[in-house]
Amino acid sequence: MTKTVRSLKVLEDPFNYHYPAGATIVTSHANGRNNAMAVAWHTAISRNPALYAISISDKRFTHELIMESGEFVVNFMPQEMGDLVAMVAGCSGREVDKFRAFEIESSPGSEVEAAVLTRALASYECKVMGRHPYGDHDIFVGEIVAVQYEPSAFGERGRLDLERVKPILYVGGDWYSTAEANSFYLDRAALIERAKEGSPTPRS
Amino acid sequence: MTKTVRSLKVLEDPFNYHYPAGATIVTSHANGRNNAMAVAWHTAISRNPALYAISISDKRFTHELIMESGEFVVNFMPQEMGDLVAMVAGCSGREVDKFRAFEIESSPGSEVEAAVLTRALASYECKVMGRHPYGDHDIFVGEIVAVQYEPSAFGERGRLDLERVKPILYVGGDWYSTAEANSFYLDRAALIERAKEGSPTPRS
Repeated sequence: MTKTVRSLKVLEDPFNYHYPAGATIVTSHANGRNNAMAVAWHTAISRNPALYAISISDKRFTHELIMESGEFVVNFMPQEMGDLVAMVAGCSGREVDKFRAFEIESSPGSEVEAAVLTRALASYECKVMGRHPYGDHDIFVGEIVAVQYEPSAFGERGRLDLERVKPILYVGGDWYSTAEANSFYLDRAALIERAKEGSPTPRS
Repeated sequence: MTKTVRSLKVLEDPFNYHYPAGATIVTSHANGRNNAMAVAWHTAISRNPALYAISISDKRFTHELIMESGEFVVNFMPQEMGDLVAMVAGCSGREVDKFRAFEIESSPGSEVEAAVLTRALASYECKVMGRHPYGDHDIFVGEIVAVQYEPSAFGERGRLDLERVKPILYVGGDWYSTAEANSFYLDRAALIERAKEGSPTPRS
């Protein structure tokens, strides 16, 4: 397999479309105003305590609301709410009250004022514990102070039940996908044992 | 839809299995030693300059190597390399030379010493520009100094071609999935226009 090597200085393609990521909607609230923004740049960063990070440009209205309130909610959306993800991605909360314009069903969080979206599969209510400007975005680190989730969407050990729900994934540009329903189990210990025996690629 | 609200203090399920994330292999190198580690906690954080963040426990050998070298590579793997992802997740580089034990095909990066995996769909070569301890992990922020990728895996504007390749997604525990081949396009401007006309849910 011959790889193409490119330094970023001459890379004309967006570097961040190389892998699908969950297309979340981040909600924020301050001074009586709510906003909702599509965010694909997010990740868990600590298990205990439970912390979550998002990356938001300081040009965004969401950035302004998070700075004022110290709170945000990460809403993990199903594929059937793709239209909403695309619509909140397509305009600014400075110009449009997205909750009204797109008839977004929500209620305030249990621990924060920012909105928990009714149609989210799960929502992490976060209080900001750190902000780090890097390049053209800021990393906001949030302590997850409460989790709301739709019980029917999750199975054993809190894993998303892909046979029942379709999480929306962002692929880049205005393109989306979802995860395949048939997830698979990989027995790490058995695979390592097999590799030790000199057969790293199992046949079955 | 009735949500279950749980504060994390009583949440027995892992909070971070609520959404699939790319199952990457992060490689590192220092003092003549290579390591490879499965990492699902990662995200882009800035476009220009191109920056990428990963979250790594300070108990990991990878953490030690990154601290020494100031470098890492994020390798985005295809589903067919799931066995390798599971195997590198199942043991520590302090005890096993994973590259030898699992016969990992790789070469040093073009800008860093850490390994670029031959079977990765894309690899981001990163130089550390910041580290932030949070909870039980550290955020490492890396400047992407070079990108290597398999050209046949990517199509228009550098988007992963899901009809040709299957990226591996981590679902939690030892469970994995991939993205569906049939990605879909959502025209944000047209959807917003339709919402303004009072029909937020398009029929077609």
